[in-house]
Amino acid sequence: MTQITLHFAPNTCARVTMIALEEIGHPYETELVSFVRGDHLSEDYRVLNPKGKVPLLVVDGKPLTENVAILTWLAQRFPNSNLLPRCTDAFAYAQVLADLCFCASGLHPIVTRLRIPQYFCDTPDAAPRVFAMAEDAMRPNFELIDSRLSKNEWWYGDTWSIVDAYINWVWFRVAGTDFDTSPYTHFARHNEKLARRPSVQRTVEKHEHAADWLASQGLEVRFSGAGAFQIKHSTSGAASP
Amino acid sequence: MTQITLHFAPNTCARVTMIALEEIGHPYETELVSFVRGDHLSEDYRVLNPKGKVPLLVVDGKPLTENVAILTWLAQRFPNSNLLPRCTDAFAYAQVLADLCFCASGLHPIVTRLRIPQYFCDTPDAAPRVFAMAEDAMRPNFELIDSRLSKNEWWYGDTWSIVDAYINWVWFRVAGTDFDTSPYTHFARHNEKLARRPSVQRTVEKHEHAADWLASQGLEVRFSGAGAFQIKHSTSGAASP
Repeated sequence: MTQITLHFAPNTCARVTMIALEEIGHPYETELVSFVRGDHLSEDYRVLNPKGKVPLLVVDGKPLTENVAILTWLAQRFPNSNLLPRCTDAFAYAQVLADLCFCASGLHPIVTRLRIPQYFCDTPDAAPRVFAMAEDAMRPNFELIDSRLSKNEWWYGDTWSIVDAYINWVWFRVAGTDFDTSPYTHFARHNEKLARRPSVQRTVEKHEHAADWLASQGLEVRFSGAGAFQIKHSTSGAASP
Repeated sequence: MTQITLHFAPNTCARVTMIALEEIGHPYETELVSFVRGDHLSEDYRVLNPKGKVPLLVVDGKPLTENVAILTWLAQRFPNSNLLPRCTDAFAYAQVLADLCFCASGLHPIVTRLRIPQYFCDTPDAAPRVFAMAEDAMRPNFELIDSRLSKNEWWYGDTWSIVDAYINWVWFRVAGTDFDTSPYTHFARHNEKLARRPSVQRTVEKHEHAADWLASQGLEVRFSGAGAFQIKHSTSGAASP
Protein backbone atom coordinates (compact mmCIF):
# COMPACT_ATOMS: atom_id res chain seq x y z
CA MET A 1 0.00 0.00 0.00
CA THR A 2 1.16 3.51 -0.79
CA GLN A 3 2.85 5.04 2.28
CA ILE A 4 2.02 8.72 2.69
CA THR A 5 3.47 11.15 5.22
CA LEU A 6 2.39 14.78 5.45
CA HIS A 7 4.87 17.21 7.00
CA PHE A 8 2.84 20.15 8.26
CA ALA A 9 2.74 23.09 10.62
CA PRO A 10 -0.55 24.11 12.22
CA ASN A 11 -2.69 26.66 10.41
CA THR A 12 -0.34 27.00 7.44
CA CYS A 13 -1.66 26.13 3.98
CA ALA A 14 -0.77 22.52 4.82
CA ARG A 15 -4.26 22.56 6.33
CA VAL A 16 -5.58 22.30 2.77
CA THR A 17 -3.38 19.29 2.11
CA MET A 18 -4.61 17.59 5.26
CA ILE A 19 -8.25 18.21 4.32
CA ALA A 20 -7.50 16.52 0.99
CA LEU A 21 -6.04 13.51 2.78
CA GLU A 22 -9.00 13.36 5.17
CA GLU A 23 -11.38 13.45 2.19
CA ILE A 24 -9.46 10.59 0.55
CA GLY A 25 -9.46 8.35 3.60
CA HIS A 26 -6.23 6.60 2.67
CA PRO A 27 -4.11 6.10 5.84
CA TYR A 28 -1.37 8.70 6.27
CA GLU A 29 1.19 9.69 8.85
CA THR A 30 1.88 13.24 9.97
CA GLU A 31 5.13 14.93 10.95
CA LEU A 32 4.83 18.19 12.83
CA VAL A 33 7.31 20.84 11.67
CA SER A 34 8.30 23.44 14.28
CA PHE A 35 9.73 26.52 12.59
CA VAL A 36 10.77 27.86 16.00
CA ARG A 37 12.79 24.72 16.71
CA GLY A 38 14.26 25.00 13.20
CA ASP A 39 12.94 21.62 11.99
CA HIS A 40 12.65 23.02 8.47
CA LEU A 41 16.38 23.82 8.44
CA SER A 42 17.51 20.38 9.61
CA GLU A 43 19.61 18.27 7.27
CA ASP A 44 16.96 15.54 7.19
CA TYR A 45 14.26 17.98 6.17
CA ARG A 46 16.32 19.82 3.60
CA VAL A 47 17.15 16.57 1.83
CA LEU A 48 13.42 16.14 1.29
CA ASN A 49 12.60 19.83 0.75
CA PRO A 50 15.52 22.23 0.32
CA LYS A 51 13.02 25.10 0.19
CA GLY A 52 12.33 24.50 3.90
CA LYS A 53 8.58 24.93 3.61
CA VAL A 54 5.38 23.05 4.33
CA PRO A 55 3.42 21.21 3.10
CA LEU A 56 5.74 18.39 2.16
CA LEU A 57 4.24 15.08 1.13
CA VAL A 58 6.44 12.01 1.17
CA VAL A 59 5.03 9.15 -0.89
CA ASP A 60 6.83 5.82 -0.64
CA GLY A 61 9.95 7.74 0.31
CA LYS A 62 9.74 10.29 -2.51
CA PRO A 63 9.12 13.98 -1.74
CA LEU A 64 6.54 16.22 -3.33
CA THR A 65 6.28 19.93 -2.52
CA GLU A 66 3.97 22.82 -3.42
CA ASN A 67 0.27 22.53 -2.67
CA VAL A 68 -0.79 22.87 -6.31
CA ALA A 69 1.37 19.91 -7.29
CA ILE A 70 0.42 17.84 -4.23
CA LEU A 71 -3.33 18.46 -4.56
CA THR A 72 -3.46 17.71 -8.28
CA TRP A 73 -1.43 14.54 -7.77
CA LEU A 74 -3.72 13.40 -4.94
CA ALA A 75 -6.77 14.17 -7.09
CA GLN A 76 -5.38 12.04 -9.89
CA ARG A 77 -4.12 9.21 -7.66
CA PHE A 78 -7.42 8.95 -5.76
CA PRO A 79 -10.05 9.85 -8.36
CA ASN A 80 -12.96 8.53 -6.32
CA SER A 81 -12.40 11.22 -3.70
CA ASN A 82 -13.51 13.88 -6.21
CA LEU A 83 -11.04 16.48 -4.99
CA LEU A 84 -11.31 18.26 -8.33
CA PRO A 85 -13.98 18.34 -11.04
CA ARG A 86 -13.78 15.67 -13.71
CA CYS A 87 -12.67 17.56 -16.81
CA THR A 88 -13.70 16.60 -20.30
CA ASP A 89 -10.63 18.09 -21.94
CA ALA A 90 -7.11 19.32 -21.19
CA PHE A 91 -8.05 22.99 -21.48
CA ALA A 92 -10.81 22.69 -18.88
CA TYR A 93 -8.35 20.90 -16.60
CA ALA A 94 -5.84 23.74 -17.11
CA GLN A 95 -8.51 26.21 -16.01
CA VAL A 96 -8.98 24.22 -12.79
CA LEU A 97 -5.23 24.21 -12.31
CA ALA A 98 -5.31 28.01 -12.74
CA ASP A 99 -7.78 28.25 -9.85
CA LEU A 100 -5.41 26.36 -7.57
CA CYS A 101 -2.57 28.61 -8.77
CA PHE A 102 -4.72 31.66 -7.99
CA CYS A 103 -4.82 30.48 -4.36
CA ALA A 104 -1.12 29.64 -4.16
CA SER A 105 0.41 32.52 -6.17
CA GLY A 106 -2.23 35.21 -6.08
CA LEU A 107 -3.82 34.97 -2.63
CA HIS A 108 -1.28 33.28 -0.35
CA PRO A 109 1.40 36.00 -0.69
CA ILE A 110 -1.16 38.64 0.37
CA VAL A 111 -2.24 36.46 3.30
CA THR A 112 1.35 36.50 4.52
CA ARG A 113 1.46 40.31 4.29
CA LEU A 114 -1.68 40.51 6.42
CA ARG A 115 -0.56 37.93 8.96
CA ILE A 116 3.06 38.96 9.45
CA PRO A 117 3.52 42.48 8.06
CA GLN A 118 6.74 42.90 10.02
CA TYR A 119 8.25 40.18 7.82
CA PHE A 120 8.09 42.67 4.92
CA CYS A 121 9.32 45.78 6.73
CA ASP A 122 10.48 45.99 10.31
CA THR A 123 11.17 49.72 10.57
CA PRO A 124 9.26 51.45 13.39
CA ASP A 125 5.59 52.02 12.56
CA ALA A 126 5.85 50.22 9.22
CA ALA A 127 3.65 47.23 10.07
CA PRO A 128 0.28 49.03 10.11
CA ARG A 129 1.06 50.50 6.68
CA VAL A 130 2.21 47.12 5.29
CA PHE A 131 -1.06 45.74 6.60
CA ALA A 132 -3.14 48.55 5.05
CA MET A 133 -1.48 48.12 1.65
CA ALA A 134 -2.08 44.38 1.85
CA GLU A 135 -5.74 45.09 2.65
CA ASP A 136 -5.93 47.15 -0.54
CA ALA A 137 -4.44 44.25 -2.47
CA MET A 138 -6.74 41.65 -0.90
CA ARG A 139 -10.09 43.44 -1.19
CA PRO A 140 -10.53 42.97 -4.97
CA ASN A 141 -9.78 39.28 -4.51
CA PHE A 142 -12.36 38.95 -1.75
CA GLU A 143 -14.86 40.76 -4.00
CA LEU A 144 -14.10 38.34 -6.82
CA ILE A 145 -14.52 35.29 -4.59
CA ASP A 146 -17.63 36.66 -2.88
CA SER A 147 -19.21 37.44 -6.24
CA ARG A 148 -18.57 33.92 -7.48
CA LEU A 149 -19.95 32.38 -4.29
CA SER A 150 -23.06 34.57 -4.55
CA LYS A 151 -24.05 32.54 -7.61
CA ASN A 152 -22.95 29.12 -6.46
CA GLU A 153 -22.85 27.11 -3.29
CA TRP A 154 -19.26 26.05 -3.97
CA TRP A 155 -16.47 27.38 -6.22
CA TYR A 156 -17.53 24.96 -8.96
CA GLY A 157 -21.27 25.23 -8.50
CA ASP A 158 -23.09 22.42 -6.74
CA THR A 159 -20.05 20.28 -6.14
CA TRP A 160 -17.45 20.76 -3.42
CA SER A 161 -13.80 20.61 -4.44
CA ILE A 162 -10.44 21.10 -2.77
CA VAL A 163 -10.42 24.64 -4.25
CA ASP A 164 -13.14 25.40 -1.68
CA ALA A 165 -10.80 24.28 1.10
CA TYR A 166 -8.01 26.43 -0.35
CA ILE A 167 -10.04 29.65 -0.56
CA ASN A 168 -11.43 28.86 2.88
CA TRP A 169 -7.90 28.67 4.25
CA VAL A 170 -7.46 32.22 2.91
CA TRP A 171 -10.67 33.27 4.69
CA PHE A 172 -9.53 31.60 7.92
CA ARG A 173 -6.13 33.33 7.90
CA VAL A 174 -7.48 36.73 6.89
CA ALA A 175 -10.45 36.67 9.29
CA GLY A 176 -7.93 36.21 12.09
CA THR A 177 -6.55 39.71 11.45
CA ASP A 178 -8.09 43.20 11.51
CA PHE A 179 -9.11 42.86 7.86
CA ASP A 180 -12.81 43.74 7.62
CA THR A 181 -14.56 40.63 6.31
CA SER A 182 -18.07 41.96 6.96
CA PRO A 183 -18.83 42.99 3.34
CA TYR A 184 -18.24 39.45 2.09
CA THR A 185 -21.38 37.69 3.25
CA HIS A 186 -21.30 34.89 0.65
CA PHE A 187 -17.70 34.08 1.49
CA ALA A 188 -18.70 34.04 5.20
CA ARG A 189 -21.59 31.67 4.48
CA HIS A 190 -19.19 29.45 2.51
CA ASN A 191 -16.93 29.34 5.58
CA GLU A 192 -19.79 28.26 7.84
CA LYS A 193 -20.83 25.57 5.40
CA LEU A 194 -17.30 24.27 5.00
CA ALA A 195 -16.82 24.11 8.78
CA ARG A 196 -19.55 21.46 8.94
CA ARG A 197 -17.67 19.10 6.65
CA PRO A 198 -16.23 16.14 8.62
CA SER A 199 -12.88 16.23 6.81
CA VAL A 200 -12.51 19.88 7.77
CA GLN A 201 -13.54 19.25 11.38
CA ARG A 202 -11.00 16.44 11.77
CA THR A 203 -8.29 18.62 10.20
CA VAL A 204 -9.05 21.65 12.37
CA GLU A 205 -8.93 19.44 15.45
CA LYS A 206 -5.53 18.03 14.47
CA HIS A 207 -4.16 21.49 13.74
CA GLU A 208 -5.45 22.89 17.04
CA HIS A 209 -3.98 19.93 18.89
CA ALA A 210 -0.63 20.51 17.17
CA ALA A 211 -0.75 24.24 17.92
CA ASP A 212 -1.54 23.53 21.58
CA TRP A 213 1.33 21.08 21.83
CA LEU A 214 3.77 23.56 20.28
CA ALA A 215 2.57 26.23 22.72
CA SER A 216 3.01 23.84 25.66
CA GLN A 217 6.63 23.39 24.56
CA GLY A 218 7.20 27.13 24.13
CA LEU A 219 7.43 26.60 20.38
CA GLU A 220 4.56 28.76 19.16
CA VAL A 221 5.51 31.19 16.41
CA ARG A 222 5.79 34.72 17.80
CA PHE A 223 6.75 37.91 16.10
CA SER A 224 8.16 40.76 18.09
CA GLY A 225 10.35 43.81 17.78
CA ALA A 226 9.90 47.46 16.95
CA GLY A 227 7.62 46.79 14.00
CA ALA A 228 5.60 44.07 15.65
CA PHE A 229 1.97 44.01 14.71
CA GLN A 230 -0.73 42.37 16.76
CA ILE A 231 -2.69 39.55 15.21
CA LYS A 232 -6.24 39.63 16.49
CA HIS A 233 -6.65 35.97 17.34
CA SER A 234 -3.43 34.96 18.98
CA THR A 235 -4.63 31.37 19.33
CA SER A 236 -4.46 30.97 15.57
CA GLY A 237 -1.22 32.85 15.32
CA ALA A 238 1.11 30.24 13.84
CA ALA A 239 2.52 31.90 10.80
CA SER A 240 2.64 30.64 7.31
CA PRO A 241 5.98 31.88 5.99
CA MET B 1 -6.26 25.95 -36.66
CA THR B 2 -6.12 26.83 -32.98
CA GLN B 3 -6.21 30.63 -32.53
CA ILE B 4 -3.93 31.81 -29.75
CA THR B 5 -3.59 35.34 -28.37
CA LEU B 6 -1.16 36.25 -25.61
CA HIS B 7 -1.99 39.32 -23.54
CA PHE B 8 1.30 40.54 -22.07
CA ALA B 9 3.14 43.47 -20.56
CA PRO B 10 6.85 43.88 -21.20
CA ASN B 11 9.28 42.26 -18.78
CA THR B 12 6.59 40.73 -16.60
CA CYS B 13 6.50 36.96 -16.21
CA ALA B 14 4.52 36.90 -19.46
CA ARG B 15 8.01 36.86 -20.97
CA VAL B 16 8.15 33.17 -20.00
CA THR B 17 4.84 32.50 -21.75
CA MET B 18 6.08 34.21 -24.90
CA ILE B 19 9.30 32.17 -24.89
CA ALA B 20 7.12 29.05 -24.73
CA LEU B 21 5.10 30.23 -27.73
CA GLU B 22 8.27 31.07 -29.65
CA GLU B 23 9.63 27.59 -28.90
CA ILE B 24 6.40 26.03 -30.16
CA GLY B 25 6.30 27.96 -33.42
CA HIS B 26 2.52 27.88 -33.68
CA PRO B 27 1.26 31.29 -34.94
CA TYR B 28 -0.02 33.57 -32.19
CA GLU B 29 -1.21 37.12 -31.80
CA THR B 30 -0.15 39.47 -29.03
CA GLU B 31 -2.08 42.13 -27.16
CA LEU B 32 -0.06 44.66 -25.22
CA VAL B 33 -1.50 45.46 -21.79
CA SER B 34 -0.68 48.92 -20.42
CA PHE B 35 -1.17 49.00 -16.66
CA VAL B 36 -0.69 52.77 -16.67
CA ARG B 37 -3.51 53.18 -19.20
CA GLY B 38 -5.59 50.81 -17.08
CA ASP B 39 -6.09 48.21 -19.81
CA HIS B 40 -6.19 45.48 -17.14
CA LEU B 41 -9.16 47.18 -15.48
CA SER B 42 -11.23 47.54 -18.65
CA GLU B 43 -14.51 45.68 -18.95
CA ASP B 44 -13.25 43.70 -21.94
CA TYR B 45 -10.18 42.55 -20.10
CA ARG B 46 -11.94 41.71 -16.87
CA VAL B 47 -14.41 39.48 -18.68
CA LEU B 48 -11.42 37.42 -19.78
CA ASN B 49 -9.40 37.79 -16.59
CA PRO B 50 -11.15 39.32 -13.56
CA LYS B 51 -7.84 39.12 -11.68
CA GLY B 52 -6.50 41.87 -13.99
CA LYS B 53 -3.09 40.28 -14.45
CA VAL B 54 -0.83 39.07 -17.20
CA PRO B 55 -0.14 36.64 -18.78
CA LEU B 56 -3.53 35.86 -20.20
CA LEU B 57 -3.79 33.33 -23.01
CA VAL B 58 -6.92 33.27 -25.12
CA VAL B 59 -7.34 30.04 -27.05
CA ASP B 60 -10.18 29.91 -29.57
CA GLY B 61 -11.92 32.57 -27.52
CA LYS B 62 -11.46 30.86 -24.15
CA PRO B 63 -9.26 32.43 -21.46
CA LEU B 64 -6.52 30.74 -19.50
CA THR B 65 -4.62 32.50 -16.71
CA GLU B 66 -1.67 31.73 -14.42
CA ASN B 67 1.67 30.83 -15.95
CA VAL B 68 1.80 27.39 -14.35
CA ALA B 69 -1.54 26.46 -15.94
CA ILE B 70 -0.70 28.07 -19.29
CA LEU B 71 2.75 26.52 -19.57
CA THR B 72 1.61 23.01 -18.65
CA TRP B 73 -1.29 23.25 -21.08
CA LEU B 74 1.01 24.43 -23.89
CA ALA B 75 3.44 21.62 -23.09
CA GLN B 76 0.66 19.08 -23.36
CA ARG B 77 -0.98 20.61 -26.44
CA PHE B 78 2.31 20.87 -28.33
CA PRO B 79 4.31 17.88 -27.11
CA ASN B 80 6.89 18.09 -29.89
CA SER B 81 8.11 21.42 -28.55
CA ASN B 82 9.51 19.65 -25.45
CA LEU B 83 8.67 22.48 -23.10
CA LEU B 84 8.74 20.06 -20.17
CA PRO B 85 10.43 16.70 -19.62
CA ARG B 86 8.50 13.62 -20.71
CA CYS B 87 7.47 11.97 -17.48
CA THR B 88 7.09 8.27 -17.05
CA ASP B 89 4.54 8.53 -14.26
CA ALA B 90 2.12 10.95 -12.62
CA PHE B 91 4.31 11.47 -9.57
CA ALA B 92 7.31 12.54 -11.67
CA TYR B 93 5.03 14.90 -13.56
CA ALA B 94 3.80 16.35 -10.24
CA GLN B 95 7.42 17.03 -9.27
CA VAL B 96 7.87 18.99 -12.51
CA LEU B 97 4.68 20.89 -11.75
CA ALA B 98 6.14 21.67 -8.30
CA ASP B 99 9.17 23.27 -9.99
CA LEU B 100 6.92 25.59 -11.99
CA CYS B 101 4.99 26.38 -8.79
CA PHE B 102 8.29 27.16 -7.04
CA CYS B 103 8.85 29.88 -9.66
CA ALA B 104 5.31 31.24 -9.52
CA SER B 105 4.56 31.01 -5.78
CA GLY B 106 7.99 30.89 -4.16
CA LEU B 107 10.17 33.18 -6.26
CA HIS B 108 7.87 35.62 -8.06
CA PRO B 109 6.49 37.24 -4.87
CA ILE B 110 10.05 37.97 -3.71
CA VAL B 111 10.91 39.41 -7.14
CA THR B 112 8.06 41.88 -6.70
CA ARG B 113 9.39 42.91 -3.28
CA LEU B 114 12.80 43.58 -4.82
CA ARG B 115 11.45 45.42 -7.86
CA ILE B 116 8.80 47.58 -6.25
CA PRO B 117 9.41 47.67 -2.48
CA GLN B 118 7.23 50.77 -2.16
CA TYR B 119 4.27 48.58 -3.16
CA PHE B 120 4.65 46.80 0.21
CA CYS B 121 5.25 49.81 2.43
CA ASP B 122 5.24 53.45 1.37
CA THR B 123 6.15 55.11 4.66
CA PRO B 124 9.26 57.32 4.47
CA ASP B 125 12.51 55.36 4.35
CA ALA B 126 10.70 51.99 4.32
CA ALA B 127 11.69 50.93 0.80
CA PRO B 128 15.37 50.20 1.47
CA ARG B 129 14.37 48.01 4.41
CA VAL B 130 11.68 46.20 2.37
CA PHE B 131 14.37 45.62 -0.22
CA ALA B 132 16.91 44.35 2.33
CA MET B 133 14.39 41.92 3.85
CA ALA B 134 13.50 40.67 0.37
CA GLU B 135 17.22 40.15 -0.31
CA ASP B 136 17.38 37.97 2.80
CA ALA B 137 14.41 35.98 1.52
CA MET B 138 15.82 35.62 -2.00
CA ARG B 139 19.41 34.61 -1.20
CA PRO B 140 18.65 31.02 -0.08
CA ASN B 141 16.64 30.56 -3.28
CA PHE B 142 19.51 31.82 -5.42
CA GLU B 143 21.84 29.47 -3.53
CA LEU B 144 19.48 26.56 -4.20
CA ILE B 145 19.24 27.37 -7.91
CA ASP B 146 22.96 28.05 -8.27
CA SER B 147 23.81 24.78 -6.57
CA ARG B 148 21.53 22.84 -8.89
CA LEU B 149 22.97 24.58 -11.96
CA SER B 150 26.51 23.81 -10.77
CA LYS B 151 25.78 20.15 -11.44
CA ASN B 152 23.76 20.51 -14.63
CA GLU B 153 23.70 22.67 -17.70
CA TRP B 154 19.96 23.16 -17.38
CA TRP B 155 17.44 22.71 -14.56
CA TYR B 156 16.71 19.17 -15.73
CA GLY B 157 20.24 18.18 -16.68
CA ASP B 158 21.20 18.10 -20.34
CA THR B 159 17.81 19.16 -21.66
CA TRP B 160 16.43 22.67 -21.74
CA SER B 161 12.86 23.19 -20.48
CA ILE B 162 10.53 26.10 -19.90
CA VAL B 163 11.53 25.94 -16.20
CA ASP B 164 14.89 27.34 -17.36
CA ALA B 165 13.10 30.30 -18.93
CA TYR B 166 11.12 30.83 -15.72
CA ILE B 167 14.12 30.84 -13.36
CA ASN B 168 15.92 33.03 -15.90
CA TRP B 169 13.09 35.54 -15.75
CA VAL B 170 13.74 35.68 -11.98
CA TRP B 171 17.46 36.28 -12.66
CA PHE B 172 16.63 39.00 -15.20
CA ARG B 173 14.31 40.86 -12.85
CA VAL B 174 16.57 40.53 -9.80
CA ALA B 175 19.78 41.43 -11.66
CA GLY B 176 18.11 44.71 -12.61
CA THR B 177 18.09 45.76 -8.95
CA ASP B 178 20.83 46.30 -6.36
CA PHE B 179 20.67 42.63 -5.34
CA ASP B 180 24.21 41.25 -5.43
CA THR B 181 24.19 38.46 -8.02
CA SER B 182 27.99 38.04 -8.06
CA PRO B 183 28.12 34.94 -5.79
CA TYR B 184 25.88 32.99 -8.17
CA THR B 185 28.27 32.20 -11.01
CA HIS B 186 26.43 29.12 -12.27
CA PHE B 187 23.14 31.01 -12.41
CA ALA B 188 24.97 33.80 -14.31
CA ARG B 189 26.39 31.31 -16.79
CA HIS B 190 22.91 29.85 -17.24
CA ASN B 191 21.65 33.35 -18.06
CA GLU B 192 24.34 33.84 -20.72
CA LYS B 193 23.57 30.49 -22.27
CA LEU B 194 19.85 31.11 -22.30
CA ALA B 195 20.34 34.51 -23.94
CA ARG B 196 21.75 32.75 -27.01
CA ARG B 197 18.56 30.77 -27.56
CA PRO B 198 16.65 32.10 -30.62
CA SER B 199 13.24 31.89 -28.88
CA VAL B 200 14.60 34.01 -26.06
CA GLN B 201 16.19 36.52 -28.41
CA ARG B 202 12.96 36.99 -30.35
CA THR B 203 11.01 37.37 -27.10
CA VAL B 204 13.43 39.90 -25.61
CA GLU B 205 13.25 41.92 -28.83
CA LYS B 206 9.45 41.95 -28.75
CA HIS B 207 9.40 42.96 -25.09
CA GLU B 208 11.95 45.74 -25.63
CA HIS B 209 9.98 47.00 -28.60
CA ALA B 210 6.79 47.01 -26.50
CA ALA B 211 8.56 48.78 -23.62
CA ASP B 212 9.94 51.41 -26.01
CA TRP B 213 6.50 51.97 -27.51
CA LEU B 214 4.91 52.37 -24.06
CA ALA B 215 7.65 54.85 -23.11
CA SER B 216 7.08 56.81 -26.32
CA GLN B 217 3.43 57.15 -25.30
CA GLY B 218 4.28 58.18 -21.75
CA LEU B 219 2.90 54.84 -20.53
CA GLU B 220 5.97 53.34 -18.85
CA VAL B 221 5.37 52.11 -15.32
CA ARG B 222 6.87 54.52 -12.80
CA PHE B 223 6.82 54.45 -9.03
CA SER B 224 7.22 57.59 -7.05
CA GLY B 225 6.37 59.10 -3.69
CA ALA B 226 7.97 59.36 -0.30
CA GLY B 227 9.01 55.74 -0.19
CA ALA B 228 10.14 55.52 -3.79
CA PHE B 229 13.08 53.27 -4.39
CA GLN B 230 15.30 53.48 -7.41
CA ILE B 231 15.54 50.49 -9.69
CA LYS B 232 19.04 50.23 -11.11
CA HIS B 233 18.15 49.72 -14.75
CA SER B 234 15.31 52.10 -15.42
CA THR B 235 15.01 50.83 -18.98
CA SER B 236 13.76 47.50 -17.68
CA GLY B 237 11.53 49.10 -15.10
CA ALA B 238 8.10 47.89 -16.15
CA ALA B 239 6.74 46.31 -13.02
CA SER B 240 5.25 42.92 -12.61
CA PRO B 241 2.45 43.45 -10.12
